Amino acid sequence: MVQYVEIFSQGEEVITGQTVDSNAAWLSQQLVQMGFIVKRHTAVGDNLQDLNALLKEVAIRSDCCICTGGLGPTVDDLTAEAVAGAFARPLQCDPVALAQIVAHFTRRKRHMAEANRKQAFFPEGAERIDNDWGTAPGFTLQEGRCWFVFMPGVPSEMKAMFTAYIVNEVLQRFALQADQLVTLRSVGIGESDLQEKINSVPLPDTVQLGFRAGVDEVQTKLLFPAGTAQQQLGLYTQQLAGAIGDYVFAIDGVAGRQGGLVEVIDRLMQQQQLTLAIQETASQGLIAAKCIGREWLIASAFRRLFMLGEDRWSSDKLFNAAIKNAQQLQKQEGTELVLVQYYQGTAEQFQQKDQPIVIFNILLTPMGIQRTEFTLSGPQKRKQNQAAILALDLLRRYLQNKCEN
Amino acid sequence: MVQYVEIFSQGEEVITGQTVDSNAAWLSQQLVQMGFIVKRHTAVGDNLQDLNALLKEVAIRSDCCICTGGLGPTVDDLTAEAVAGAFARPLQCDPVALAQIVAHFTRRKRHMAEANRKQAFFPEGAERIDNDWGTAPGFTLQEGRCWFVFMPGVPSEMKAMFTAYIVNEVLQRFALQADQLVTLRSVGIGESDLQEKINSVPLPDTVQLGFRAGVDEVQTKLLFPAGTAQQQLGLYTQQLAGAIGDYVFAIDGVAGRQGGLVEVIDRLMQQQQLTLAIQETASQGLIAAKCIGREWLIASAFRRLFMLGEDRWSSDKLFNAAIKNAQQLQKQEGTELVLVQYYQGTAEQFQQKDQPIVIFNILLTPMGIQRTEFTLSGPQKRKQNQAAILALDLLRRYLQNKCEN
Repeated sequence: MVQYVEIFSQGEEVITGQTVDSNAAWLSQQLVQMGFIVKRHTAVGDNLQDLNALLKEVAIRSDCCICTGGLGPTVDDLTAEAVAGAFARPLQCDPVALAQIVAHFTRRKRHMAEANRKQAFFPEGAERIDNDWGTAPGFTLQEGRCWFVFMPGVPSEMKAMFTAYIVNEVLQRFALQADQLVTLRSVGIGESDLQEKINSVPLPDTVQLGFRAGVDEVQTKLLFPAGTAQQQLGLYTQQLAGAIGDYVFAIDGVAGRQGGLVEVIDRLMQQQQLTLAIQETASQGLIAAKCIGREWLIASAFRRLFMLGEDRWSSDKLFNAAIKNAQQLQKQEGTELVLVQYYQGTAEQFQQKDQPIVIFNILLTPMGIQRTEFTLSGPQKRKQNQAAILALDLLRRYLQNKCEN
Repeated sequence: MVQYVEIFSQGEEVITGQTVDSNAAWLSQQLVQMGFIVKRHTAVGDNLQDLNALLKEVAIRSDCCICTGGLGPTVDDLTAEAVAGAFARPLQCDPVALAQIVAHFTRRKRHMAEANRKQAFFPEGAERIDNDWGTAPGFTLQEGRCWFVFMPGVPSEMKAMFTAYIVNEVLQRFALQADQLVTLRSVGIGESDLQEKINSVPLPDTVQLGFRAGVDEVQTKLLFPAGTAQQQLGLYTQQLAGAIGDYVFAIDGVAGRQGGLVEVIDRLMQQQQLTLAIQETASQGLIAAKCIGREWLIASAFRRLFMLGEDRWSSDKLFNAAIKNAQQLQKQEGTELVLVQYYQGTAEQFQQKDQPIVIFNILLTPMGIQRTEFTLSGPQKRKQNQAAILALDLLRRYLQNKCEN
């Protein structure tokens, strides 16, 4: 049976645009994966009338509603009051919730304001959701057709509560059949080229195909209907990955192959016990910054003087200079791998979004030198990010190909 | 007269959580600044029935509605069709729109698919909004109480169309009285300390005070009612900025003082014709990365070996090592300013969110050495970002104080 869910966010900061509502997107992803159809996202401000009207609508319209925000201690936190009013369920003190809130302040040796008592009052018939990550407990209740879940708006608390308490209860309450999502994650190839490569693989009509171009990667999404045999799913995934080729750096939904570009690199660097030094130009520190916490990155340097431009060099001359630079860096840092990036372009070409620059990447390895060349355009932050991603991808290809050989 | 606006986003990628709806937040900010009260954000998927129901609700409920998405060429782009159905306004071809779409493809020497013709069909009575930035034109129409604006969902196109065509028309159609927003932007001080410092300044009840803690800064927001005299606004702003002190790096809403931390630094570095070299540790390239396109940054290096930890050094010993390092870097790079960051903490302390590290910043200047010390905790990405921000803020304070003396 199809089950409809909607998401409801409360707060002035959302409705006035001070905060981008990332809670709604995160919750939707979880709910879609569980097998729900998400019908609506709605956000309203701290206004009792608006909240009231919305709650009544939802109780008729949907099977489940996940609400965030409005559970804080101050006068503008109105969710419990609005629920009480809309559904004629007077607020009642939950002694366990009150004890938890008192304990939270006692543990931190902080004074508890009188206003915090309010957070222990729930509408009649509600069930408490413990908040082990903050002061505001949540609650759930069934009203009309709809099972409501109310959680605080702080993303870290909301996500922790949802994962720890709500997921299980949802799976028990609703008979959901989740479609199976496989995501092929690629770098260095655009949507239309992906589409063309994929066209060669015949897919059954029941498999939904979609693309998502992000800042760091392009994703090819395959939604297999609930109940698809794992073997069949694996077969199609393998065929598509083969058709796209080594642009694919990871496959989410397939064990052991999932993760972001840096995670994939991290796994391979650790397996192969390698270390790396980097020379950055166009990426200006961003390659190193993306590798935060990865101990195989030994050193990284950015220097403006490597930004060549006015006098145009040939590609070979540039690569040769980069190789010399890489060899020097290897001597200095003693790493097995050295990644050096140069680019050709003036400061103006770098800054102007409609002007291109050319990126040259060199990877010095114990098995020889690998090189790539790309033309980048767009705003300078995009050039910077693409320069970082494409350099990291050269490293990823080397590590993955080495693994496979 | 109070005017209500709402925002409506259409698309499967929004409703399934693949895309965070940043359009709604951006539009809300614009509309609040213009003097509207934003009542609701709603998102629905590519479903004719859901679109229909929502459009009818809005036409009764609000004075204005800004809609994004669903104007593309494919079968899942249903907005125009939904409007036609909901309001009994048959679709009609707009010959100017069609000519524009044809021209778009001709200019790019690309084949125009038959599906693109669809984008030139608008509901009866609609007025076209030109899209000079993509293929999908938008349209506006009055239905019931509500003036609807339909634009494509691609953020860059939507923002350009809104700014170029919609803002003016909105200001003509609606008698809006915009409140005046002043934002004091600060680094290195928390919300509760800000609140305490501000308490010493008596503000009239008509001024709304709010705080926003972001990843890079904390903002103190003052909303002055429409019609507040500039002199009075300036006086209060000055008093509050004085009470907070030099944690404030910029004031948005006051000419010549606005901007982000790096923008403020950029202005001062250019005025004072200075150059900078950086040694990064905990920030791991992120200080340099944040300064993309700023030509006063000559070089930056990250080295793991500067991450001291196991054997605890005294603060003085650490600062002395950092100063030596800075002097060496100055000799090597020939910059007037050198920023060196060390930290005390093991790799584990850096990675674990509940463990602290201690950051030591040194700024070598022609007028002597400045130093700061901070304790950071939280997830490693937060430590990395705070380390970068606090180092940049040391530079900002030096440049700003020098300016004022």
